[in-house]
Amino acid sequence: VAHLIQCVPNFSEGRDPAVISALVEAVRVTQGVALVDQSADADHHRCVLTFIGRASAVQAAALAAARQAVALIDLTRHVGAHPRIGALDVLPFVPLGETPMAECVDLARATGALLARELGLPVFLYEEAATVPERRNLAIVRGRGFEALREAMLHGECAPDFGPRLVHPTAGAVAVGARGPLTAYNIVLDTDDLSIAKEIAHGIRERDGGLPGVKALGLWLPSREQAQVSINITRPLETPIWLVYESVREAAAGYGVSVLESELIGAIRLEELVETARHYLKLPGLDRRRVLDLWAARLGSEDEENDGEG
Amino acid sequence: VAHLIQCVPNFSEGRDPAVISALVEAVRVTQGVALVDQSADADHHRCVLTFIGRASAVQAAALAAARQAVALIDLTRHVGAHPRIGALDVLPFVPLGETPMAECVDLARATGALLARELGLPVFLYEEAATVPERRNLAIVRGRGFEALREAMLHGECAPDFGPRLVHPTAGAVAVGARGPLTAYNIVLDTDDLSIAKEIAHGIRERDGGLPGVKALGLWLPSREQAQVSINITRPLETPIWLVYESVREAAAGYGVSVLESELIGAIRLEELVETARHYLKLPGLDRRRVLDLWAARLGSEDEENDGEG
Repeated sequence: VAHLIQCVPNFSEGRDPAVISALVEAVRVTQGVALVDQSADADHHRCVLTFIGRASAVQAAALAAARQAVALIDLTRHVGAHPRIGALDVLPFVPLGETPMAECVDLARATGALLARELGLPVFLYEEAATVPERRNLAIVRGRGFEALREAMLHGECAPDFGPRLVHPTAGAVAVGARGPLTAYNIVLDTDDLSIAKEIAHGIRERDGGLPGVKALGLWLPSREQAQVSINITRPLETPIWLVYESVREAAAGYGVSVLESELIGAIRLEELVETARHYLKLPGLDRRRVLDLWAARLGSEDEENDGEG
Repeated sequence: VAHLIQCVPNFSEGRDPAVISALVEAVRVTQGVALVDQSADADHHRCVLTFIGRASAVQAAALAAARQAVALIDLTRHVGAHPRIGALDVLPFVPLGETPMAECVDLARATGALLARELGLPVFLYEEAATVPERRNLAIVRGRGFEALREAMLHGECAPDFGPRLVHPTAGAVAVGARGPLTAYNIVLDTDDLSIAKEIAHGIRERDGGLPGVKALGLWLPSREQAQVSINITRPLETPIWLVYESVREAAAGYGVSVLESELIGAIRLEELVETARHYLKLPGLDRRRVLDLWAARLGSEDEENDGEG
């Protein structure tokens, strides 16, 4: 059975179409990977690519995109709503199906070493790939962002796992990790009052007694002049996306504010869609094995292979 | 590219586990088909198998299951909530992906001829496979069911497309067709008043001015002592399942009745789950290409093939 791995690099560029398409193309032309999604956001000034494949192909695609990011993105001229430390800001590897987490840990460390050597980036290993417990938490790794990191000397406790003791002048540093599934999900509120989004984020985040595995921030979207609750669901099979949506919707209603729309950044797991339909349609008997397209994708690919040999 | 076909035979047996598992096994052991779902219902006294594959494999599985149905099901002792004419009652073939409908029409007719010759069943071709316009409508083909058909002489306008002029004494007749996607969906109401289910069915069915492509019946479920709206959504990409659910929920609320739960019979298309999440989560940007499992199924199968070749 194939050991598939998902890779979800986040880049600090969400506006320039030429840069975004260079990043996308670097992945697209890599043999053996399937590009699942590209999400760019002008307000966050980030883009997120999602692709899958075996370890070696995924690593090749990640390195190819990283080269483009270091060449084309200048963090000294970057301002955005989202915390970040690098041009290629975060590079997580996620096991799919039966793939063991250890394989993603190995891949993160090997890829981190290559990024340091080839591109001169300080590399911080995080979450499952972390070498010290404090670095498991990405928020701590990112600290106060590129500007703070640039001033600091990366020695002692601050030393990166790989690479130079100074951040790259234009590309900063990078956090490379291995982690479980994560659903990046934003909910846009019909209000220009950022404090409401911040209060709602406070109410749903696990750290403050909210929903299991939920991280959340209230952010301001200048291009839309609206407030947004920006959410990471780090245990999407435990805390379903519909529960996050309903929690935000109800909390907003308490302020007399409605949800304008929500946005997914990157990919979603079929199980999350199944669980959403199960809930809203009161359809307990639904399960992923009943989704026709999944069987067709399997059988179709097998047949394509057979056709190719015939 | 593989031309995949979905087959959804409906059998008049929903209670005897030994018979149901004989039908299931007949499909499961057939090379080249994937069994997607088996749904048996004691009140409807029916079971529905859903499987996919290429034309030749799908035909082999359908014939294997039909042999079991004719051998094991005795319609003279069958009573159920659902209209039916045969042990193997309905045998539709549905194109998947890029498969042309014409391929399913050919397959329906060829399979119908084999069912008549080998098993002595009168075969009526329906919907896209119909040879006369009146037989496009399955409800007309089924007419008043097995008991009425048994008394009739199948001559002239009533003659089957293939097979004898008399129904099989225990297995009746069979409707074999080619059709587009159909979602079979039941909604159980928290009431023992069948007339409410019938009124709601009347309100949503296309024929009476309701939702496009929707067929609906109010049925009584003796085993649960509850009323059910039994629904076929024949254009599920035009009339989404959530709209059907919400229409029934709102109509029921008008009678002070709530929805207990809903049930899917057979398979569902990924697009329907995507559309459901899009609606309830106000997530317009969601589309099927963002579903990770679909890409993994494709890539995984390819890799398995490659592994097999060494």
